[in-house]
Amino acid sequence: MAVITLTTDFGSLYPASMKGVMLGIDPDVTIVDITHSIPPMDIRAGAFALYSAVTYFPPGTIHVAVIDPGVGTERKAIVVRSGEHYFIGPDNGVLIPAASLLGDIEVFEIKNQDILGDVSSTFQGRDIFAPVAAHISRGMDLEDIGNSTDEYIDLDFSGYVIEKDFIEAKVIYVDKFGNIVTNIPQEQIVKDVLKGTVLSIAGRQMPFLRTYGEVPKGRMLSLIGSHGFFEIAVNQGSASKLLHLNNGNEIRIGIMSSQ
Amino acid sequence: MAVITLTTDFGSLYPASMKGVMLGIDPDVTIVDITHSIPPMDIRAGAFALYSAVTYFPPGTIHVAVIDPGVGTERKAIVVRSGEHYFIGPDNGVLIPAASLLGDIEVFEIKNQDILGDVSSTFQGRDIFAPVAAHISRGMDLEDIGNSTDEYIDLDFSGYVIEKDFIEAKVIYVDKFGNIVTNIPQEQIVKDVLKGTVLSIAGRQMPFLRTYGEVPKGRMLSLIGSHGFFEIAVNQGSASKLLHLNNGNEIRIGIMSSQ
Amino acid sequence: MAVITLTTDFGSLYPASMKGVMLGIDPDVTIVDITHSIPPMDIRAGAFALYSAVTYFPPGTIHVAVIDPGVGTERKAIVVRSGEHYFIGPDNGVLIPAASLLGDIEVFEIKNQDILGDVSSTFQGRDIFAPVAAHISRGMDLEDIGNSTDEYIDLDFSGYVIEKDFIEAKVIYVDKFGNIVTNIPQEQIVKDVLKGTVLSIAGRQMPFLRTYGEVPKGRMLSLIGSHGFFEIAVNQGSASKLLHLNNGNEIRIGIMSSQ
Repeated sequence: MAVITLTTDFGSLYPASMKGVMLGIDPDVTIVDITHSIPPMDIRAGAFALYSAVTYFPPGTIHVAVIDPGVGTERKAIVVRSGEHYFIGPDNGVLIPAASLLGDIEVFEIKNQDILGDVSSTFQGRDIFAPVAAHISRGMDLEDIGNSTDEYIDLDFSGYVIEKDFIEAKVIYVDKFGNIVTNIPQEQIVKDVLKGTVLSIAGRQMPFLRTYGEVPKGRMLSLIGSHGFFEIAVNQGSASKLLHLNNGNEIRIGIMSSQ
Repeated sequence: MAVITLTTDFGSLYPASMKGVMLGIDPDVTIVDITHSIPPMDIRAGAFALYSAVTYFPPGTIHVAVIDPGVGTERKAIVVRSGEHYFIGPDNGVLIPAASLLGDIEVFEIKNQDILGDVSSTFQGRDIFAPVAAHISRGMDLEDIGNSTDEYIDLDFSGYVIEKDFIEAKVIYVDKFGNIVTNIPQEQIVKDVLKGTVLSIAGRQMPFLRTYGEVPKGRMLSLIGSHGFFEIAVNQGSASKLLHLNNGNEIRIGIMSSQ
Repeated sequence: MAVITLTTDFGSLYPASMKGVMLGIDPDVTIVDITHSIPPMDIRAGAFALYSAVTYFPPGTIHVAVIDPGVGTERKAIVVRSGEHYFIGPDNGVLIPAASLLGDIEVFEIKNQDILGDVSSTFQGRDIFAPVAAHISRGMDLEDIGNSTDEYIDLDFSGYVIEKDFIEAKVIYVDKFGNIVTNIPQEQIVKDVLKGTVLSIAGRQMPFLRTYGEVPKGRMLSLIGSHGFFEIAVNQGSASKLLHLNNGNEIRIGIMSSQ
């Protein structure tokens, strides 16, 4: 009785057909939506969403992620095994950060046509990834699904610079509150150094603190968010609206002084 | 341990009460949201959503669809049986295309007051359709729920014209990517004829191809979408925004030449 | 095999981690989303959403509600028991109206650190409320989770005035259709008196009726909505757009005459 998670840019309607296919193969599976609201084709945002959730799911969980600009073209369909979890999706990097977070990864190219239904050229989430996930849920060996491969497209969240007096980074996710999640992981921001520092962005100062409520309502702050990344927020407000920043934007943060 | 699907125009919140009612009657049921984002009162869009998903669900699935401008008035509440699936909702056509896709349909008018709770005049999804679905899930015969009837409101996706040099059709669904799904089913577009043809809409040319990635990013194409309908799309862009088209709009497509 | 419901202002993504945590502790739990679309930090709207759904869930259901402007500050985390249901969330009032609806309430402050994971300062929905819910689902006694307390923050939907010729009230929820739900419960509006009355708002008249379809399309009416509150609606239209009213707004309704 495994758990299957879904991460897509489909919005509503399309995920339901995937769920129907999976329940037809394994009626006992528990399906959890991670999100279907990834911006269309934004592989990096999809990779982040899965990465931010994966460690909270139990061993044996099967993760399907379909952000797939190359659907119907020659890109491979893969399964990744890592730390007792399984990851299924297109070979475009979307699965790799989450899988790597759990340990060493093994990649298999999906080859076994017998376990797939009619494969459309536009909706492989339903026609390839969903049935493969349900067959793994029922216990099928990866060796019976495809061939192990060392060739796959990698993706990481790198691309940031931390210097003595400034930080350059990218926005990888803006949540519903308007909190701006950057691509700088917790480990790369030395908390002891930043603590008590005043940072600045777009000419506005912000402290580095522990949680939103440590500044008055409407004031900006920076913190390590619940995903484990460096984040810019406004207490009970939207940093995204205030700074006009969205997914993929590049930002420069000044490190002004130690208090 | 049946599957119940939900298709509504409720947005969030209201579907939860339906789920609570169903789980109170049958704790073992698996509930799948098809969508709750149908445009308010758009019976045709709701019918299309259910139609596009129904064939991917296993036999025994029970489908509840509530797009119900006539709630609380004299319209009937019905159950439709077709091809080992059940369909429950208002008698306004929303159930019929999906049910007919699976075979010959039998229609029952819901009459048994004993299986319903207090019936409000504004939320029959919760007070009629949800409990009926859960009782069917637990094995209740349709004959114990109501009376077989031949009188029901029909709905189909017809209303298109295919001529030698033009097509007239309607938009029945615009998905999150901005892909425009028309009401012309796959069978009515002779692929062998259209293949290699150049089509045009609103003065813009578009090829008829197999999948999005066959044109460069930002270019328009037409194809048979994953729902089995003729579709207009922009690779990694929004045809809906480009052409200012939405649900219910009528379109005219020129067939320009064979290449 | 209990049911756990979730009511948050998280939008997508964040609820998934909560579900992963709960399924890791109790794989048999059935999770139902009430809504994740509460306006950010709107405790009153969250309290209303849970209140409107709670009576439709079976005994033994566990409700988690996280609208939590004070996350990471000193506010308490509580469990409330009432009428065989459990309610888990921050001590800011969000749980109280729903719990009180089911009977006398008992409040416990969450104290047992052993059942929590690493507690982040920004996402206690995942780190405190989700594991507590799953442990209750598996049968843990509330006495083993924390200490009974009489000190908690109350919240009710009061704040309305009903006079002979006018009503003053607050908007507590606007649904997807644009129906305006006020804070006046059914019991406080004497139906026998209002029936046949003509009401007015913002200079426009509206009848008090039983359901939307009793006025022509596009016409305004008032009624007792399916939540059991006095509601203002437009048949097949949006009262919220027509009157420019939203959550938290105050309204004045004239009682014009008996017909």
